[in-house]
Amino acid sequence: MSFARKDLLGLAGLTAGELTDLLDRADALWDAARGPGRLAQRPPGVDRLSVANLFLEPSTRTRCSFELAEQRLGVEHLTIDGERLSLEKGETLVDTARVLEAMGVNAVVLRHQENDAPTVLADAMPRLHVVNAGDGANEHPTQGLLDLLTMRRHWGAIEGKRVLMVGDVSHSRVVRSNYWGLTTLGASVTLCGPPHLLPDDGTFPGAELTDDLDAALPKADAVMALRIQRERFSIGESIPDPSSYRARFGITVERAAALPDSVVIMHPGPMNRGTEIDGEVADSLRALVLRQVTAGVAVRMAVLAAIAEARASGSG
Amino acid sequence: MSFARKDLLGLAGLTAGELTDLLDRADALWDAARGPGRLAQRPPGVDRLSVANLFLEPSTRTRCSFELAEQRLGVEHLTIDGERLSLEKGETLVDTARVLEAMGVNAVVLRHQENDAPTVLADAMPRLHVVNAGDGANEHPTQGLLDLLTMRRHWGAIEGKRVLMVGDVSHSRVVRSNYWGLTTLGASVTLCGPPHLLPDDGTFPGAELTDDLDAALPKADAVMALRIQRERFSIGESIPDPSSYRARFGITVERAAALPDSVVIMHPGPMNRGTEIDGEVADSLRALVLRQVTAGVAVRMAVLAAIAEARASGSG
Amino acid sequence: MSFARKDLLGLAGLTAGELTDLLDRADALWDAARGPGRLAQRPPGVDRLSVANLFLEPSTRTRCSFELAEQRLGVEHLTIDGERLSLEKGETLVDTARVLEAMGVNAVVLRHQENDAPTVLADAMPRLHVVNAGDGANEHPTQGLLDLLTMRRHWGAIEGKRVLMVGDVSHSRVVRSNYWGLTTLGASVTLCGPPHLLPDDGTFPGAELTDDLDAALPKADAVMALRIQRERFSIGESIPDPSSYRARFGITVERAAALPDSVVIMHPGPMNRGTEIDGEVADSLRALVLRQVTAGVAVRMAVLAAIAEARASGSG
Repeated sequence: MSFARKDLLGLAGLTAGELTDLLDRADALWDAARGPGRLAQRPPGVDRLSVANLFLEPSTRTRCSFELAEQRLGVEHLTIDGERLSLEKGETLVDTARVLEAMGVNAVVLRHQENDAPTVLADAMPRLHVVNAGDGANEHPTQGLLDLLTMRRHWGAIEGKRVLMVGDVSHSRVVRSNYWGLTTLGASVTLCGPPHLLPDDGTFPGAELTDDLDAALPKADAVMALRIQRERFSIGESIPDPSSYRARFGITVERAAALPDSVVIMHPGPMNRGTEIDGEVADSLRALVLRQVTAGVAVRMAVLAAIAEARASGSG
Repeated sequence: MSFARKDLLGLAGLTAGELTDLLDRADALWDAARGPGRLAQRPPGVDRLSVANLFLEPSTRTRCSFELAEQRLGVEHLTIDGERLSLEKGETLVDTARVLEAMGVNAVVLRHQENDAPTVLADAMPRLHVVNAGDGANEHPTQGLLDLLTMRRHWGAIEGKRVLMVGDVSHSRVVRSNYWGLTTLGASVTLCGPPHLLPDDGTFPGAELTDDLDAALPKADAVMALRIQRERFSIGESIPDPSSYRARFGITVERAAALPDSVVIMHPGPMNRGTEIDGEVADSLRALVLRQVTAGVAVRMAVLAAIAEARASGSG
Repeated sequence: MSFARKDLLGLAGLTAGELTDLLDRADALWDAARGPGRLAQRPPGVDRLSVANLFLEPSTRTRCSFELAEQRLGVEHLTIDGERLSLEKGETLVDTARVLEAMGVNAVVLRHQENDAPTVLADAMPRLHVVNAGDGANEHPTQGLLDLLTMRRHWGAIEGKRVLMVGDVSHSRVVRSNYWGLTTLGASVTLCGPPHLLPDDGTFPGAELTDDLDAALPKADAVMALRIQRERFSIGESIPDPSSYRARFGITVERAAALPDSVVIMHPGPMNRGTEIDGEVADSLRALVLRQVTAGVAVRMAVLAAIAEARASGSG
């Protein structure tokens, strides 16, 4: 079953067929993600797409990834970042989107600091495509897809694999999107972090929650270190200090050395080398960090192409 | 008589023939303004235009509108916004424009906080085209043109119509450009606002000035609510507070309900819903707010195309 | 001998043959630098280049020049400026570049506040092309090349000419790049400025150092006034005040009038009119200031084209 929705708001709720369709499309676009230039053979419908990249939270990495995806697809696009936009006081997000739509924009890539802002926008705008590029602590579906693509390319299949994510689980939209994608495709998920940064039991049905990294590591096929926001170190001791964090939850050289060769290491970036991951581990052969970045361009091209095709055929 | 000037600095001084030429061009570009993609049949001369969008005051809306117009015409362009530019201290606007010209840029779209900055620039640069994208409290000619286009498409013709503009008339460049365009095309203009925000009698020859909105409304064919800058509320009580303003000058649900069905409502955006215009009114069928936005892209394409054609034929 | 390096980090170390090759290429691109539009006949390999303009120090002028060069070559490109980037704390420059490379970017145009940052990056990244767009007080090689091109077009050849640069010599990357380019091509260089802003004798072998502008002027074929950073006026009296500076080191109307007609005046911009150069001098026929700007686009196209060709042929 192919992905033919109006919006990509999260990986929660997507079927295995839809996820597989997006990953298959991204696989087919891998070469375009790795190198310069507009596709010679552009996917159907992309010439009728016009994208506004609306980044109300700054993100160089995700913004560049989407801009390159759009350039290589040959999609009309423009970028609006938060500082500029915040200057136009008194206008709601929906009003801004209506204005863009009236200019011929028909898709918005939205990064927003508040949970569910993309869903609110998508519900309010029946003809505008909304791609969630990260909303608060909710979802970051293209990040989830790029992680899935990276793993599927490495292993051939995701079903039956065991993925361990380590860090500030409660506040991570990366964890949420990965959890839904991985479990839908048949992987099992373990979430590890300081106890007060682990969510309630019901949040991630079927996932194992633990604060003991060393007990969890031997059971993993992939280990994903999450970025620790340094701002958190100072706030109410929610995270004691970088070296204590590293001692308990860092993917250190010592921990990596104890893993079987087949285990891969991932990180969504930007990395705090020496805190959640040691630099040597990040640069080692088992680290897929840069392949994740390439997968990001492929996945974003795939999502936009799927939306363009659904739109052109009237099903999106 | 077609528009064949070097610059578009304001609507004051343009003939009815020139205005009509620009509106006709914009009408012909309506489909391109509504949807993505570069024109298959590009207007003559646009391939020899190179535009710098120089926004010394921030404006997401106007900047995006020009950038989309330029993309759809297939005009070479780059954007420089104020924060970046202000960092290069010690260089005048004319020196900046000379530098751009030496790089092959031959047109500048200028948003500037000072009255007449575009005119000063246009006078200093005999071969550089200058398009005023809003200068202080002087003019915003592409806004005026897009309002004219919206009305002409709605009514068929502007002659004989009565347009009421409501708000901070003294400080509004939107009012100035609309006044000149409307009166040149044979419409009559009424300006309504708090007495101390109405200009002297001689500023708008032939326009009716009033502070009584309810007396003015029954005589209007179109009502344009002006954006109230919230910053003004705190300064010396020049505007008492949002709810008092709404009570006296807001286009409220009650006021709109009392108007004949044929009367249209306009707003240049961004809107302060609940202050100068009620949200329900802005979203009602009689509101042309989003059509104004579409008209903005069409008008900006038309102005750039007219300048490109005049340049190519040696008359601009 | 043609320029076929991976990177352009500085003019120090380039041979006369390499400099001449880059200047010849830029000469051939002169028309494209002066006017709009993508080259009909694109240089070989540019369709396989993908450039990130990474400006960690703001520079409207240099950024626009590179962006226009990239547009006219038809090179895939994106721009990241410092304010945005600095928000992604904890990531090193090399990590950022690796991420860009994983997205298919294969060249970085880098403006950086620290000396040698481009060299560090180029050494760390064996397959990434690095073009130095100004690093601290070290080099600004495309500025040096554009000055060389301007002089060579004016004189026919640079060999044997005497070039005088005036200002804050110690802190000027413009001086460094010009010194290496000029001396390699057989010109002689005199450096003039306040004694405490002149470097040690060994820094510029063969260059004459002096604090007496009026003694140096009669021996020059070209006089280059350097931009005085106004910030310096307040710091510890390193430069007393603008009018004292002008009296001793300004290229004034009086000083210009005393020069033979054949002597040309240059300035890298942005100019402080009335401090290091009088406005009348900057606007006089002998001033090549705007030709330098045009040369900047030509030179940047040439450098990117040379790198693209070397890459395509496997030698870069």
